[in-house]
Amino acid sequence: MAGMAGAIRLGLVGIGKIARDQHLPALAADDRFVLSATASRNAQLDQVAAYPDIDAMIAGAPELQAVSLCTPPDGRYAQAASAIAAGLHVMLEKPPAATLSEIAALEAQARAKGVTLFTSWHSREAAGVAPARDWLADKRIDAVRLHWREDIRRWHPGQEWILGPGGFGVFDPGINALSIVTKILREPLLLQSAWMEVPEGRASPLKAELAMRSGDAAVTADFDFLQTGPQTWDIEVDTDKGMLKLSMGGSVLELPGEAPQKAPDREYARLYDRFAQLVAAGDSDVDVRPLQIVADAFLLGERRVGEAFSF
Amino acid sequence: MAGMAGAIRLGLVGIGKIARDQHLPALAADDRFVLSATASRNAQLDQVAAYPDIDAMIAGAPELQAVSLCTPPDGRYAQAASAIAAGLHVMLEKPPAATLSEIAALEAQARAKGVTLFTSWHSREAAGVAPARDWLADKRIDAVRLHWREDIRRWHPGQEWILGPGGFGVFDPGINALSIVTKILREPLLLQSAWMEVPEGRASPLKAELAMRSGDAAVTADFDFLQTGPQTWDIEVDTDKGMLKLSMGGSVLELPGEAPQKAPDREYARLYDRFAQLVAAGDSDVDVRPLQIVADAFLLGERRVGEAFSF
Repeated sequence: MAGMAGAIRLGLVGIGKIARDQHLPALAADDRFVLSATASRNAQLDQVAAYPDIDAMIAGAPELQAVSLCTPPDGRYAQAASAIAAGLHVMLEKPPAATLSEIAALEAQARAKGVTLFTSWHSREAAGVAPARDWLADKRIDAVRLHWREDIRRWHPGQEWILGPGGFGVFDPGINALSIVTKILREPLLLQSAWMEVPEGRASPLKAELAMRSGDAAVTADFDFLQTGPQTWDIEVDTDKGMLKLSMGGSVLELPGEAPQKAPDREYARLYDRFAQLVAAGDSDVDVRPLQIVADAFLLGERRVGEAFSF
Repeated sequence: MAGMAGAIRLGLVGIGKIARDQHLPALAADDRFVLSATASRNAQLDQVAAYPDIDAMIAGAPELQAVSLCTPPDGRYAQAASAIAAGLHVMLEKPPAATLSEIAALEAQARAKGVTLFTSWHSREAAGVAPARDWLADKRIDAVRLHWREDIRRWHPGQEWILGPGGFGVFDPGINALSIVTKILREPLLLQSAWMEVPEGRASPLKAELAMRSGDAAVTADFDFLQTGPQTWDIEVDTDKGMLKLSMGGSVLELPGEAPQKAPDREYARLYDRFAQLVAAGDSDVDVRPLQIVADAFLLGERRVGEAFSF
């Protein structure tokens, strides 16, 4: 990141854990962006103009050209709509908004205003994903299995909202698996049926199983928020040339008869690279498929009430 | 309907109540269509080539140019995909498919193949809807109330599936209200919160309430499947120039200080008029907004378990 004349003057909205762990290092390493301002209720950064919210930032920092939103999805619509109305390019953390209608409305607003809208899905930029897609391009795909099992208490300690209405429950991590699989498969991913287990007194599930299809391939997903011990973020693809396996959330790729491939984590560096390219080209990238599958699962799914849960 | 050289040779798929009550009379009255074939497991029409399913119809009636699907939404994806792959224009009853992912996939397939895809929403063609939209165009809209209350036992006797997974429950009629309101309001309709009451042992709700916004206007919906006696399908819109009211499912329009306007039911005549125009122009009309709001309500909504229900 540098104050180059040609660099995109960016405002970062929502200075929480994901901003500090991922967005700030990625921006610092990319010459095409300069961090001009932040908006956050509580946090600020040294030597960067700080505002309490996005509307104050837009009013106070007229030099801004783009914003990146790392706030929770609930409330992100109004922030993105303000930014688009001010003529700013917008990058959204995953999932891009709280509802599908919100994303559709933002897409129309961005098109009308001629600004870039980028719905980012960081797991798609994991090191193994692009090579997996390339390897699968000429294979017959017979079956796909998503196993996404993690410990809610370890990764979301005390986050009661994640089991509330609109909190997505186990689909909060599971949507990462869906973002990868919609990227690596050629044929559209369609939900056939789903069940989910919602703990007594909560609104969102701790467990879910999805039965899907992609062309002739059966695609199953097994999402579990109660796995202690080793954590599982694996995708297995059976093909006519053997099984491809992505593990560790897409960062490790195993091809038949080859040693596992690993590479450093560059997910957010790649997201900002893509955002810079979209802005330069005057394009948008709005892909709602992972969220559509989640909404389809809530629409069609059978629900069971499970044991009460506390953090 | 006539065997004119220029008429669109159409196959009708699903010969049930809605086909006989609405589609066949509308087609019979429209010179731009000729009914060339039907596909139905059990039913057939005099003097029209009959096939047991759409794939047999496509194989047996190569002269077909278009199909209209009146089958239930579950299963319609495969039928529409077959028709598009065969180069046929496709009109879909409401809701257009079982899931949002299915519609998105069909839209991409139709675009790639260069055929027309038309997601029809018959309630939008009710007599009062277009004049309501025109009257609202220059008004300030303050509040909108949808009241959609009907008797499931009267309109869906014994249809157990409607309360099963993917049956939509009270959203089956309620989506008609959402199709009207997304047509008459200028600003995008966004869901804020929802609750629904699902009877013990069922998957889909008998009652739902939605809190939405459209620009600065609060939009509320009250859907009830247990209303006996007079039935209610009303939309009220408070504006700076008084209240507009649509009743009887959009067929009666009341404007401030004017007598109610009624006109004959031409919903399906208008749908086929629109389909003929789209085919002639080489365009598609794929509008998923009513289904998106329903999916958003399932995604965000709070659920309560209500008393068991039997037909």
